[in-house]
Amino acid sequence: MPDFARTPRATVRRKAQRASYARTDVNAILDEAPFCSVGFVEDGRPVVIPINHWRIGDSLYFHGSPASRLLGVLCAGAEVCVTATLVDGWVLARSAARHSTNYRSAVVFGRAREVTDRAAKMAAFAALIERLAPGRWAEVRPPSDSELDSVRMAALPLEEASVKMRAGPPADTEEDHALPVWAGVVPMRLVAGPPVPDDGLDPAIPLPECLKPRNEA
Amino acid sequence: MPDFARTPRATVRRKAQRASYARTDVNAILDEAPFCSVGFVEDGRPVVIPINHWRIGDSLYFHGSPASRLLGVLCAGAEVCVTATLVDGWVLARSAARHSTNYRSAVVFGRAREVTDRAAKMAAFAALIERLAPGRWAEVRPPSDSELDSVRMAALPLEEASVKMRAGPPADTEEDHALPVWAGVVPMRLVAGPPVPDDGLDPAIPLPECLKPRNEA
Repeated sequence: MPDFARTPRATVRRKAQRASYARTDVNAILDEAPFCSVGFVEDGRPVVIPINHWRIGDSLYFHGSPASRLLGVLCAGAEVCVTATLVDGWVLARSAARHSTNYRSAVVFGRAREVTDRAAKMAAFAALIERLAPGRWAEVRPPSDSELDSVRMAALPLEEASVKMRAGPPADTEEDHALPVWAGVVPMRLVAGPPVPDDGLDPAIPLPECLKPRNEA
Repeated sequence: MPDFARTPRATVRRKAQRASYARTDVNAILDEAPFCSVGFVEDGRPVVIPINHWRIGDSLYFHGSPASRLLGVLCAGAEVCVTATLVDGWVLARSAARHSTNYRSAVVFGRAREVTDRAAKMAAFAALIERLAPGRWAEVRPPSDSELDSVRMAALPLEEASVKMRAGPPADTEEDHALPVWAGVVPMRLVAGPPVPDDGLDPAIPLPECLKPRNEA
């Protein structure tokens, strides 16, 4: 698939040097972000709701209850804007005004469509569970037909998107470099802690390989 | 200030037992979240942009360049929806369909107003820097008058808001409890790593007390 076109609404207007329209950059942020925020218009006013997402190829997937307002909006094919953001660090400059954040964010515009086919839903469920922990799908009880039917699922084609990011050290003025003030970056990242077994779990069931922490500090 | 009214758009519709309208709950999430996502309507379509925020009393503050589209929207007093989300863990059930996420999210609706008064901007800058690292404000060069004038700032009164969250173990069916599948929660949190000094930093300048990592795994 080609990279994204610089449509008017997807074009980054401020600090264009921090922008990207490369599909690989958009995908990398969507794949790493644990959740996204979906914006839609209701009665002419904006609403933004967080939800977990996952990507299969060139589509972003969402699922939820048939009673969910957000799933209703997605499945109806309303215009949405999906934003996923990763915080990489606090940028501490010598001057207050130059403090900043290192981050990566992806913004996607489009209209989703409902996924109703059971086989497609099953494949998407597998991708969701594998995203959480690769190998987990083979361990869990897969959804039954009635579970598949009772979950609402939507897929948003990745057709209009852009990335904006900041990385690197503070950008103090030349003059401020002489100040006796500590400056640098405090890196931030989302880290998994040791898994906590369910109270009712049979102690004979070991922690599976796929859940052994890989991301601890 | 009283808690929030259950206005139609701020009322959580699904899983109301996971909702809160308590000001202390909304504030706690806004204060912990490193960024938020601001939704607005442009040409009838939704746009969602991430930005850093900070709270002073019953207002949420934002700042940026006068050229920023988002600051323009905020300062113009357009309707916005601000969502801040914290991921607390992956919930791994015995069945695929019961996998979930532990999270806390706050959704705020309203219209911001521009902050133009220099003294108010200076006080808000202090609150922003202190939020990053308590004690930092006393160490950095404060904004000059021209820096204050060249930053656009907006304050959103916290008048209509709600919280939705999930906590706790997986909710497998009674039947699924008999399955030989590991189930539990993988806790997640945003962690600060060791500060990285700016390349140009005088090695005689020590890491200030306020930046010594407090949040490491």
